[in-house]
Amino acid sequence: MNVLEKIDTHPFYVEPFHVDFTGRIFMGILGNHLLNAAGNHSQKRGWGIGALNENHYTWVLSRLSIEMEEMPRQYEHAQVKTWVESVMKLFTNRNFAILRPDGTPYGYARSVWAMIDMETRKPCDLLSLYNGDILNYVVSPEENVCPIAGHGRFRFKDAQLVRTIDTYYSDVDINGHINSIKYIEHIMDLFPRERFEKQSIHRFEIAYKAESYMGDRLNFYVQPVDENETDVEVKKNESEVVCQAKICFR
Amino acid sequence: MNVLEKIDTHPFYVEPFHVDFTGRIFMGILGNHLLNAAGNHSQKRGWGIGALNENHYTWVLSRLSIEMEEMPRQYEHAQVKTWVESVMKLFTNRNFAILRPDGTPYGYARSVWAMIDMETRKPCDLLSLYNGDILNYVVSPEENVCPIAGHGRFRFKDAQLVRTIDTYYSDVDINGHINSIKYIEHIMDLFPRERFEKQSIHRFEIAYKAESYMGDRLNFYVQPVDENETDVEVKKNESEVVCQAKICFR
Repeated sequence: MNVLEKIDTHPFYVEPFHVDFTGRIFMGILGNHLLNAAGNHSQKRGWGIGALNENHYTWVLSRLSIEMEEMPRQYEHAQVKTWVESVMKLFTNRNFAILRPDGTPYGYARSVWAMIDMETRKPCDLLSLYNGDILNYVVSPEENVCPIAGHGRFRFKDAQLVRTIDTYYSDVDINGHINSIKYIEHIMDLFPRERFEKQSIHRFEIAYKAESYMGDRLNFYVQPVDENETDVEVKKNESEVVCQAKICFR
Repeated sequence: MNVLEKIDTHPFYVEPFHVDFTGRIFMGILGNHLLNAAGNHSQKRGWGIGALNENHYTWVLSRLSIEMEEMPRQYEHAQVKTWVESVMKLFTNRNFAILRPDGTPYGYARSVWAMIDMETRKPCDLLSLYNGDILNYVVSPEENVCPIAGHGRFRFKDAQLVRTIDTYYSDVDINGHINSIKYIEHIMDLFPRERFEKQSIHRFEIAYKAESYMGDRLNFYVQPVDENETDVEVKKNESEVVCQAKICFR
């Protein structure tokens, strides 16, 4: 199989209600396009959510790091290219390029996924699933580069509680979990209007640690790293970490 | 011009993150598809937002009423057909049919739009704009029926304040206003999980009365009409009505 057959292209269009007050696409909406591209890519190859659910497995997103030179703007047409960079026993690395119609990059993204057994919620061995079929689709960094840094580590020491929110109907997905995109929205909502007026987001990282459910109360803790970089930790029930994020403005 | 040239078809696909925990599309997401269909329809005919903005005019959504036999489900393909039913001096009525690929209806919608001068915020005379070009696109009820009731009237007497929310970055559109779709989300979020488990939404109506802005505090007042029907009024600054909605479960 040649490299092109391993990489999928997922076009998208920047709709009016998908941009912020500066006219740039919301980070959560961009994340949604990436997850759709990932879903389609695996679906077409027989290890998408639908096929897996029949076998009681599902993909779980663990990390997502997005780094943008520029955010697509209202009415622009763009495309996501996605491919599997590597597969380990319990995790797979999937990369993304977010491109203009002429092929020049808006930016790139990296993600880490695990596959879990839906009953036991325990991770499965990706290398043995479907006789390791997923390995046939690996595109090495030499074949297609993703020129952004890998996922960083989070260290929270003196994060301050800045907001508490209740979660409702619109926050949850078909599994009854607060959906991955909604966390991104709630995290972006921590920043004041002035921040987005003066700066744009250069890099966004999120690590999903635990599930939360409709009705859970979420606490948002903020830890500034420097004037452009902020770490955010989200906890439910005041103790359990649900997700952690890093937002780098420029 | 024949009727088919006056009606547009806008396909959509029900994405995983666009469905609720029952697997049905969120009302806000469906509303977004309708508004996109409306935008494309007018854009292609030369009186879309882009063309208008150059002339300092913009469309403002005043009413939206959606009535569904069934909500589209995850992974389903659907289409919106949209047409202008009538044009008055200050308002135009636009209808929608939400159809399955085989042409059978999921449901229908009605909407009312005004055009305003962006500087004075006053309504414009639609019949004189572009020499009344919009009249060339009217499809009468005899030519294409929209078999749902018109927009109702709201009467609030003893509505109870049930929630107060602050508005943030993700709530606002490119004009800096809380976006029409976000109101729908916040209104749906007033209902408990059990409601959506036992019932589905048959009809949703909303009347947009005034703009609100990022940072505005919104108060939600609920008035049950009967066991299936609830009216909701949204106010800012405790007095000014921003929008009113009716939700009919079945």
